[in-house]
Formats: sequence, C-alpha cells, structure tokens
Amino acid sequence: MENSESNTITFEALKSFCKQAYEAVGVPEQEAEIVSDLLVRSDLRGIETHGVMRLPTYIQRLEKNYVRKKCEFNIIRQKGATATISTNGSMGHVVSQKAMNLAVSLAEIYGVSWVSVKDSSHFGAAGLFSMMATEKDMIGYVCSNSAPLMAPYGGREKILGNNPLSYAFPSDKYPPVIVDFSCSVVSAGRLHLKRKKGEKIPLGWAVDSNGLPTDDPYQGTEGGGSLAPVGAHKGYGLAVANEMLSALLSGGMWSKNIINLHRPDPSGIQGTCHSFMVIDPECFIGRESFKKSADDYIATIKGSKTARGVAEIFMPGEIEARTEARRLEEGIPISKPTVDELVALAKRLNLSIPEFSH
Amino acid sequence: MENSESNTITFEALKSFCKQAYEAVGVPEQEAEIVSDLLVRSDLRGIETHGVMRLPTYIQRLEKNYVRKKCEFNIIRQKGATATISTNGSMGHVVSQKAMNLAVSLAEIYGVSWVSVKDSSHFGAAGLFSMMATEKDMIGYVCSNSAPLMAPYGGREKILGNNPLSYAFPSDKYPPVIVDFSCSVVSAGRLHLKRKKGEKIPLGWAVDSNGLPTDDPYQGTEGGGSLAPVGAHKGYGLAVANEMLSALLSGGMWSKNIINLHRPDPSGIQGTCHSFMVIDPECFIGRESFKKSADDYIATIKGSKTARGVAEIFMPGEIEARTEARRLEEGIPISKPTVDELVALAKRLNLSIPEFSH
Repeated sequence: MENSESNTITFEALKSFCKQAYEAVGVPEQEAEIVSDLLVRSDLRGIETHGVMRLPTYIQRLEKNYVRKKCEFNIIRQKGATATISTNGSMGHVVSQKAMNLAVSLAEIYGVSWVSVKDSSHFGAAGLFSMMATEKDMIGYVCSNSAPLMAPYGGREKILGNNPLSYAFPSDKYPPVIVDFSCSVVSAGRLHLKRKKGEKIPLGWAVDSNGLPTDDPYQGTEGGGSLAPVGAHKGYGLAVANEMLSALLSGGMWSKNIINLHRPDPSGIQGTCHSFMVIDPECFIGRESFKKSADDYIATIKGSKTARGVAEIFMPGEIEARTEARRLEEGIPISKPTVDELVALAKRLNLSIPEFSH
Repeated sequence: MENSESNTITFEALKSFCKQAYEAVGVPEQEAEIVSDLLVRSDLRGIETHGVMRLPTYIQRLEKNYVRKKCEFNIIRQKGATATISTNGSMGHVVSQKAMNLAVSLAEIYGVSWVSVKDSSHFGAAGLFSMMATEKDMIGYVCSNSAPLMAPYGGREKILGNNPLSYAFPSDKYPPVIVDFSCSVVSAGRLHLKRKKGEKIPLGWAVDSNGLPTDDPYQGTEGGGSLAPVGAHKGYGLAVANEMLSALLSGGMWSKNIINLHRPDPSGIQGTCHSFMVIDPECFIGRESFKKSADDYIATIKGSKTARGVAEIFMPGEIEARTEARRLEEGIPISKPTVDELVALAKRLNLSIPEFSH
C-alpha cells in the first residue's frame, strides 16, 4: 500500500464499480465501459485529479440531465482528412474516444487527420486520448478548451481556460512518450490544497483580482484572482491557440461561456470543445523505423548525465507508465475522502460497496 | 527614429541590400528574394534576433559551403495529405517557404496537411512561416528542432534544442493571431546581454554545469550550463515533442548532432528539421465564419479588464503587427554594431553601402 491514509483496490474491481454506477443512472453498457475504463486508468497512472474522485460529480450531472446519458456523435461535416462533430452535451470521455478512433481511421488513409468536436463536456486526462493513437503505432495529439481559470496575459478577468494539450509518440522497448499538460503554471487544485494547509503559494502561480502576483491561494482563486499562464506570454499564447484550434474551428463555445463542472447547468450543454490529430509515421519514415528511432532518442536523453541530486532522467509519461505497472500489481490507492464518497454513492445507487483493502 | 543609438533604413532598401549580398555569393535571384524578404521582415516586426544581424553569418556559411547556394527540395515521399522532404543542407528560409506552400496546397485538397523536412538549416523566425497560411485564410503551424541549448529536465548535459513552434490564425479586422515561442524560459541571447552588462540573471532562467539553478549568466552558457525549459517539465515535454515531430518523423538529425550556427561545418549539413501543418477552416466552420469568430474572440479578450498598471491587453503577435506597420512608415532602426557589420560586408562583397539615415 502506497499511503497509510488510503485504501487500495484492484483496477478491475474499481472499474466494475464505476461501470455499475454509470449504468445505474441510465448510461448504455458500452459507453459505461468506455468512461469507467478511462476514469480508473487515470488513477492507475497516478493522475488522481482526473480519476474516480470525479465520479460522484459526473454521476450527479448525468442524473440532473446536465449531460446526455446516451452519447450523441453527430458528424456535421466530413471532408478529406477532417471531420467536425457536434455532441449536444454528451460525456467528454465517450465522445473523445469515438473522435480519436475516427481520427485514427482517417490518418490510415491520408497520413494525417484532424477531428474537431463542439458542445462536448469535461473529458478528464488529455493524455489518455492521444495515447490511443500509439496503440496503432501512430502519433496522437489532442487539445481542448476548458472552463475559465486564467486571465489573459496583462488582464485581470478570468476568461480563459488552462486549455490542456497532449502529444503521444509510439516507441518500441520503452513506454510511449506522453506529453500532457495544461497552460497554467499549476492547477487550481494545487492552490486549494495550499489553502487547506494554511500555506502561502510562490509568486508566479496566480494573480489577484487586480491582476497582480499574489502569494495568497485564496486571492488567486475564490478571492477573485486567476491562475497564471505557464511562462507568461508563452502559456497565454498556447492557451489561446488551443482554444482557437478547438472551439473556433468547430464553431463551439469559448471559455467564458463554458460551464464549470461544479456549477448547475440547466442549459444541458457544458460546451467544452476538443480537437484530435493523428499522424501515421508510415507515410514518413515508416512505423517500425519511427519506433526504433524513438527508442534511440529516448536512450540518448535517459543516458545523459543527471543533475546533481537527481537519480534518473524521465521521459514525459514515463513516471505514469511505471505507476501503472506497479498499481496493476499492487492495486490502486484511493484517498480516504474519495473512498467515503464512493461508498456513499454506492449506497445511494443501491450498488455493492466496492471492495477496498486496508 | 526609435533609438538614438541606431540608424534607420527602409524595408525596401534593406531588403535590396540583403538580396544583392546573397546573389553576390551565388544564390539564385528568386531564392535571394525569398530569404532577404524573410530576414528583413523579422526586423520589420521587431524580431531583431532573427533579422539582418544574422546576415554576415549566413553569407559566410554560404561562402564556405556549409550551406547549399541553390536550394534542393527533394520530395522523398508524398502520400495523401503528407510529404517528407530532404534538402541536403539548403537554406532553412527557402526550404521552409517551399514546404509551407506545399502544405497549403495539400490542405486545400484534404483540409489538413503535414510536411516534414530533414537536413535543412537555421530558418529564422518560426512565425513568418506559419503566417503564410493566414494569407490564404488557413491556420498554419510550424515546429523545428535546433542546435543544443538545454539539458533535459533533471539532467545536466546540453543535448536538447529550445525547439521553437508557431501557430498562426486568420482573422478579419484584427491582425492574425501569431503564437511564436521557443521552449526555454529565455533565449541564450538574453543571458549574453546580461553578462555583457555584468548583471545577474533570475534563478529559473538557466542551470549550471551541475544541472543546478544559477544566477550567473556565464555559468548558464559558456560556463558549461544550459538554458532551463519554460515551465520545467512542461517546456521539456514540448521541446521533446517538437523534436519528435520534426526530426524523428522525417528521419533527420537530433539536436545533439545539429551544428551550431556559429561553428564551422565541414559536413555541409547543419541538419535542422522542421514540420509544417496547415488546416483549412473551410472544411470545418468555413473560412469566413472562422475569421469573424476570431474577431469576436479577439475583441472579447482585448475588451476584458486589464491588470492594474497595464494599459492594454495584446493578442499574441499584435505587438509585432503594430511594429511592422510603424516601421513600414518610419523605417527600420538597426543597431550600430549591426550597421557596422553590414557596411563591412558591403565593402567585402563590393556592393553599394546600404542607405541608412541618422
């Protein structure tokens, strides 16, 4: 067990519980399978912020009809290597899996493809979708907008999401290289944690309601402030690009109109937009050559000298791959508050309590 | 005149001089036109680091046969919406203009396109190439690797470039949105400037030869250190992605094998690799709708409240667009050391001295 204040559970048991919960509120079996797998896979890879701790919120939003129970995946336009999809407020996870599958099929024909999606909802961890391409030895890319969290560079109004992006590259012996990050220095969750502990935050993480740097986590969030973009104008530019590539290209909603996951949504459309690109190395250097070349590249980086005090250089996504391997063996540790919420959810939906071990 | 320590010159006069210099060392007229236009356009837009201050180096490399005088643009592979190009060490500027034109043509057919280039050389400002797509109301993207400047995150060996990327989005009334940055916190030039002035650098800009943060600009560069990636693991991940998308996909050289622009290169192949993507909004929301939507988006961001002490919120690329408009009217200020180098170059190549006004 990784942490004495958490309980562990196997991947299969946790996934099975999630699936039952989704089915209990009316999600079709196949779609419940997709979203449950993605949710628990986030925990498996150590990305707890996008894992089962979100389940109670997701279930509640389905029950209240803020999100469609059955996924709508309407191809508005399909031309050449591209497609535009509208989903009428369906589950981001299910929509994105379908969109990525479509992007992979188009890339098989054209060598590169681009699929843009509008009127979707929160899709969890971006890296899980880009990774799907690597299962076919292709390169995957995804970007998304998100509910507002940041002010523009030089501004004080929280009107931009921290709009995540992810690249995934296939390799041979090493795990695939997965770049997966959002455009703020840190997540809002990091500020909430600091606030809970009564700690200050480093200058640079957030600005206050005047748009000035703050070391007070409350001022940077509920106090009216915003998260700061990573690398100032660089993260600001990337957040703008990700939103233009997803929301503007698909004709969807922009950040300030996107509904926060924790707010009521009588409109029934959270509005998140995503884009998916797949590149087939077969049209360039060749799939096998690319994977061998990726291995050489990874070996060169990992074989270079470490900074003093650092034991090992990791490739992007490598720590997550190790966590996944370990947790498949040892089980997934789930924090006590999340365990309590899952147990409460099980009781409310009349499901068997998931089997955690202590 | 913008600066009392600089001389000004018109865009046309400076471009004409550059073109004569390129032609004098054997570059064909049409290619001399392309590279001169791009070089002087960098100065016009305020990106001096990629402008005519580089001309003496570029000319010298051509004279020494480190770079091909006549551009080779060999299509190794063309399949669907993709192409792979080899250039046998040709000028990055000329190669990239041709590659972007090819990407635009492919996107006109398929809606999205991807062109990867190997064995190229330094191409200057990435944003000038992505912008070419906006002239056709399309979205442009470019990434490149570069000579080594950074250690991997957690490392101490300078084996990664700061691998720039740029996105360009068409708009209607506003200037196009141009996101253009490299993956280090700051450029090596910023450290050299600090060192010249005898100043310290902020912690976070660079690491020393042990891979530890340093405030000494010498330790961060020639002293054996490296530039730090922007946003730590985020900039590291993006630099890796940009290199995998350019060098690995095209089968070209990686950063540690790329020759620094200021070093002799008897191999005759600097080795830089680039990739170009174009998306045609016509296949999605439509070109005109995209541009109108971009205007609304820009107006929303620019119309939001500024941080205290900030007069105006700028979109990515907006300051450069204003500089361009002003310098087209008033002329381009060129710093005294660069003027001296250009005059020396003119004399050496037996060309008329460019007409600077004081």
